[in-house]
Amino acid sequence: MKDLAVSILAGDRNAIANALSIVENDVDLGNIILDALFPHTGKAHIIGITGPPGTGKSMLVNHLAGLYRHPAEGKYPCSVGIIAIDPSSPFTGGAILGDRVRMRDLAGDNGVFIRSMASRGSLGGLAQKTYAAAQVMDAAGFDIIIIETVGAGQSEVNIIQLAQTVIVVEAPGLGDDIQVIKAGILEIADIIVVNKADLDGADNTERYLKTMLDLANKSYDHEMISSAVEPAKNPPVSPWIPPVKKTIALTGDGMEVLIQIIKEHSDYLKSSGEWNTRQRIALSRHLLESIKEELYDRWQGNISKKIWDSMVDQVCDRKISPRSAILELLKKSR
Amino acid sequence: MKDLAVSILAGDRNAIANALSIVENDVDLGNIILDALFPHTGKAHIIGITGPPGTGKSMLVNHLAGLYRHPAEGKYPCSVGIIAIDPSSPFTGGAILGDRVRMRDLAGDNGVFIRSMASRGSLGGLAQKTYAAAQVMDAAGFDIIIIETVGAGQSEVNIIQLAQTVIVVEAPGLGDDIQVIKAGILEIADIIVVNKADLDGADNTERYLKTMLDLANKSYDHEMISSAVEPAKNPPVSPWIPPVKKTIALTGDGMEVLIQIIKEHSDYLKSSGEWNTRQRIALSRHLLESIKEELYDRWQGNISKKIWDSMVDQVCDRKISPRSAILELLKKSR
Repeated sequence: MKDLAVSILAGDRNAIANALSIVENDVDLGNIILDALFPHTGKAHIIGITGPPGTGKSMLVNHLAGLYRHPAEGKYPCSVGIIAIDPSSPFTGGAILGDRVRMRDLAGDNGVFIRSMASRGSLGGLAQKTYAAAQVMDAAGFDIIIIETVGAGQSEVNIIQLAQTVIVVEAPGLGDDIQVIKAGILEIADIIVVNKADLDGADNTERYLKTMLDLANKSYDHEMISSAVEPAKNPPVSPWIPPVKKTIALTGDGMEVLIQIIKEHSDYLKSSGEWNTRQRIALSRHLLESIKEELYDRWQGNISKKIWDSMVDQVCDRKISPRSAILELLKKSR
Repeated sequence: MKDLAVSILAGDRNAIANALSIVENDVDLGNIILDALFPHTGKAHIIGITGPPGTGKSMLVNHLAGLYRHPAEGKYPCSVGIIAIDPSSPFTGGAILGDRVRMRDLAGDNGVFIRSMASRGSLGGLAQKTYAAAQVMDAAGFDIIIIETVGAGQSEVNIIQLAQTVIVVEAPGLGDDIQVIKAGILEIADIIVVNKADLDGADNTERYLKTMLDLANKSYDHEMISSAVEPAKNPPVSPWIPPVKKTIALTGDGMEVLIQIIKEHSDYLKSSGEWNTRQRIALSRHLLESIKEELYDRWQGNISKKIWDSMVDQVCDRKISPRSAILELLKKSR
């Protein structure tokens, strides 16, 4: 295991691939690797990219990665790790298919590492696995780590909030105003992209998103990222106002500007102290979620199938209430 | 509290509204009400409706509710409860806006009760609250309970799986093949609707979904709804093949057929024994999720802010690994 960690720190691609499989599939073994890698993490710029299906996120991510690898003259290329969270079915092989399509563009470049993670049917834990995968890539020395997820529900919000820079991608014509509100991810955005900006209605979408953001900024009190167990935030003197930018990932229009804005956001985070705050919040979230899983695992390991089945039977027959069953089941595991 | 339960069982709208607020906002008080109502639950047909933003789900739900209230001659009208899960921002008031838009169509009908639930920023718990709200409506005697959610991530899958009948709504032109796969909710569908079927590409979307379903049925092993702690499923002699149906909710085209298919699915569930199996699985999920939350709450109540902050500090400074901090924090709470 120590050899594996050494190989990862040296950037060995096979070792990275192995470690990513382990942290995704074997919690105990994964923890040993993560423990060894942890002192070497915290350097990468983690960019979360989310938005509804059909907005062209994958194309945008591929294009971004390409620009980081082949920047304008005079700039240094960055290495890029990509984690694509794919809530696809276990049987359709969406994740693998996604990998193949991506591979066409970025294949053969050692400075790019792409990993798709299927959400499968597991209850929770995906945010944890994403966090672990990002830690592996961080320790392996990737400058930029892009996490791409289809955004709509709370689980996506949890995943994406481990990023330092959150980009929300929309596209023209994805429904009426109420649908756009329903996406409900604007409040975690640092940068908003209207992709497919060559489609009809791009200006309307841009204007609408700007209005939504104005509303948001008036009442935004960082409620989502503060809590009783997290440290108070020091609001920076001049807060970051999320810009709305139009892109056409297919042709590359607006992509250079987007890279520039991402850089500006990273500079802002560092000068305002938010870089550290966000790392702290991401770590706190990870600790709390891991503790939740661990407590549950310990309980589950202590309860017999017989007791469980008998409790469920009694609830199904309406003989006892769910609440009584829960209290009973918690008592029995002591 | 007992008076409230009696009023709910009598179908008193104010009592139902109060109870829904309580179960959404106050876990302890909510549990007392749910305990009193539980013996009277298990009668409603719970229909889950999910799908990507922009597919016209809200319109479809409104139209369905209208048809249940004013059915074809010779059929008995059903009362309908609607729970709209709205992952909107806490500050834009999306949930309230959603309510108002719906209200225009169904206002003034005592046989319809509509409730929007905002997902807000809370970590988890939404599936629990939805379950609780459905229990209140079930006890209040609504024949049909429709749960509507924007479907993409695991949290939506968790919410929707408490339904007996899951309808996945798609629409033409929501992106290329890979995007449709990414929605990843086909495997939980009992009925698939291609809404906005007057748009270009409806036939393509229908054909594509049918192909996906054929693939799915070949390897579908019910992995998602069975687990070590859940009872084995008895596959019925003639399994239900999810039909794909085209609708135009705006004009009502195909809606009568959809109602008929929902009825057929309900008949199938009852004759195959799956009705009880699904109730059992939904109850099991509810118990497990509640136990997870309760274990975490008990732990959190036992840990001091000082110890927590000091642990997070040490992890942020890379002095100890997250894993060591987790084990330490679990030890300290004993």
